[in-house]
Amino acid sequence: MTIFQRILAGEIPAKIVHEDNDILAFHDIAPQAPVHILIIPKRLIPRVGEAHDSDAELLGRLLLVARDIAKVQGLDQTGYRLIINNGRDGGEEVPHLHIHLLGGRRLSWPPG
Amino acid sequence: MTIFQRILAGEIPAKIVHEDNDILAFHDIAPQAPVHILIIPKRLIPRVGEAHDSDAELLGRLLLVARDIAKVQGLDQTGYRLIINNGRDGGEEVPHLHIHLLGGRRLSWPPG
Repeated sequence: MTIFQRILAGEIPAKIVHEDNDILAFHDIAPQAPVHILIIPKRLIPRVGEAHDSDAELLGRLLLVARDIAKVQGLDQTGYRLIINNGRDGGEEVPHLHIHLLGGRRLSWPPG
Repeated sequence: MTIFQRILAGEIPAKIVHEDNDILAFHDIAPQAPVHILIIPKRLIPRVGEAHDSDAELLGRLLLVARDIAKVQGLDQTGYRLIINNGRDGGEEVPHLHIHLLGGRRLSWPPG
């Protein structure tokens, strides 16, 4: 059971900023920017590489939830970056698909 | 007209790796990793912050195309990172939604 599944189960506390039937979003415990939030599907998809074609709508909704959270956090004018890590080279740390939303500072290039 | 719209119109050459009715993908001209590909919707969505709820399926399909390209490029075992920049702090350079797919080296953290 990953740490995200334990958060979903209520076994580990998290600073939740969004919840609906399919998606949960909460603050990263090791923030890399003034705002650093994770958006995850409740249903386990280990990583984007293992998403199915039938997951298209859900994947898109993860991005739309990120859009909405960015607005609530006041980042829609200043800007933000969304990141999905897949596998070793991507820096994936938890095998449960998550989108990182980072903002509140100028993100540099390259992105890692 | 952005550089991406000129690529879509065939006015500027690009190393295209995927094309379907809704999506185009091509190599970034300033690659930040051994593999650096951009995936864009053909229809103009300036940035994720301006996507509509009705774009969910299309947004998800952009991620699934990234998944497929990563596999073709041999990155599914080694890993990769997907990045969407929105606005100034995100480092957005072209106001036409695009997903960066980076792989072929170990991506560091933080992601910019």
